[in-house]
Amino acid sequence: MAQTREQFEARLRQIGAERYHDLHPFHDRLHGGSCTPDQVRAWVINRYYYQHSIPMKDAAFMSRVESPDLRRAWRSRIEDHDGTAENEGGIRRWLRLAEAVGLEPDYVASCEGVLPATRFAVDAYVRFVREKTLLEAVAASLTELFAPKIHANRIQGLLKNYAFADDSSLSYFRNRLKEAPKDVAFGLSWVLDHADTQEKQDAAAKALVFKTDVLWAQLDALSAAYVEPARIPPGAWQPHEGLARQRKAS
Amino acid sequence: MAQTREQFEARLRQIGAERYHDLHPFHDRLHGGSCTPDQVRAWVINRYYYQHSIPMKDAAFMSRVESPDLRRAWRSRIEDHDGTAENEGGIRRWLRLAEAVGLEPDYVASCEGVLPATRFAVDAYVRFVREKTLLEAVAASLTELFAPKIHANRIQGLLKNYAFADDSSLSYFRNRLKEAPKDVAFGLSWVLDHADTQEKQDAAAKALVFKTDVLWAQLDALSAAYVEPARIPPGAWQPHEGLARQRKAS
Repeated sequence: MAQTREQFEARLRQIGAERYHDLHPFHDRLHGGSCTPDQVRAWVINRYYYQHSIPMKDAAFMSRVESPDLRRAWRSRIEDHDGTAENEGGIRRWLRLAEAVGLEPDYVASCEGVLPATRFAVDAYVRFVREKTLLEAVAASLTELFAPKIHANRIQGLLKNYAFADDSSLSYFRNRLKEAPKDVAFGLSWVLDHADTQEKQDAAAKALVFKTDVLWAQLDALSAAYVEPARIPPGAWQPHEGLARQRKAS
Repeated sequence: MAQTREQFEARLRQIGAERYHDLHPFHDRLHGGSCTPDQVRAWVINRYYYQHSIPMKDAAFMSRVESPDLRRAWRSRIEDHDGTAENEGGIRRWLRLAEAVGLEPDYVASCEGVLPATRFAVDAYVRFVREKTLLEAVAASLTELFAPKIHANRIQGLLKNYAFADDSSLSYFRNRLKEAPKDVAFGLSWVLDHADTQEKQDAAAKALVFKTDVLWAQLDALSAAYVEPARIPPGAWQPHEGLARQRKAS
């Protein structure tokens, strides 16, 4: 039997409480100031691959949506990442963070040096959205329910602990604090409206679990490659590659 | 300008020399007898996901091949894994290995507990074969060029170091020693015949690099999850799950 709307929302939130990547030890290390500059750079390089893929994921979603209303509601996600005349967009903001930590933005944007495991996880998400039901695709986006807390902690922790952190370099996260709640309010209510059978609720919950796996696997790969005992896989970024010639004063 | 056949073959073999997963420290640990029983089990569980996906990969390939000759040549790969009236097939052989290391074969076959990062990497390979050119798909299979050495080392190392190892439990590897050379001789000659421009050679080499990444990422994920400092991701196999009720005498 289907759960009530309230029960089902609580079930989704519980998935975040148990599996969202704010629980991963890499984030403690990052926000607590224990990351070396190269570990921060590795995070910026690999997380860029996720940022760079998200608008493709959203376009894949929209390519399967027949309702103009739903497409219209979803479109702002692409604008938030890719930018508009008024808004530089999340991807350019991320590249400013890259520059602030001493990386050449063009190197980061090339996606050379991204860990294969990062690509596999992120590509799995794009393909999930391309192949699964619309309900599962929207449900997978609901990790944004849990993002405001991690973004707020991140801003606070980075500002306190790293010289590169300032309003400009962290603008990505400040903007997500504004953008994510509007997206996720829409996505959550859409999922609660459409998951009207037990089968659909199970599928939506499973999709959200899948997405937490995608996020967690990225931090596992990052830790295995760049945190002691570090073992960088063949072909992935080696510290001192892709550094900006003139390092910004920090 | 395209390389000669000999030059191009040497280039492909060099990729293996530099990036094949026989270079990964997990294999030293496994073959040298340093793995705990639970680490061996984790390897068996996760590597099963790869075995289980390979015939789907081969079917995806054949679904795109218009030449009956090429399909006919390729079909034996599916038979080798899934079995025939005379041959139990690699998947059942792998499940015998699972039983020998104390796991419930049904648990292993369920693919519950497989690391998300294993799924992402292996699924990336299946999708690569489904989406890329036939040349890239065949080139990606050429990691089998490098497999006989690792299988021979593995048989020797496991027999020497682990009580579970015997002719029955290791029959998967002995059979691959017979099967892989015939597959790879065909695949190599097909790639050398068809990669007749520099562009195609570059694409084929890149496909083989991609495949080495798929294999390497699986061992990285396994190590990060189950080798100290071990950190098992949410939902993945926990030691003592899926054990056979009656452990085989070893």
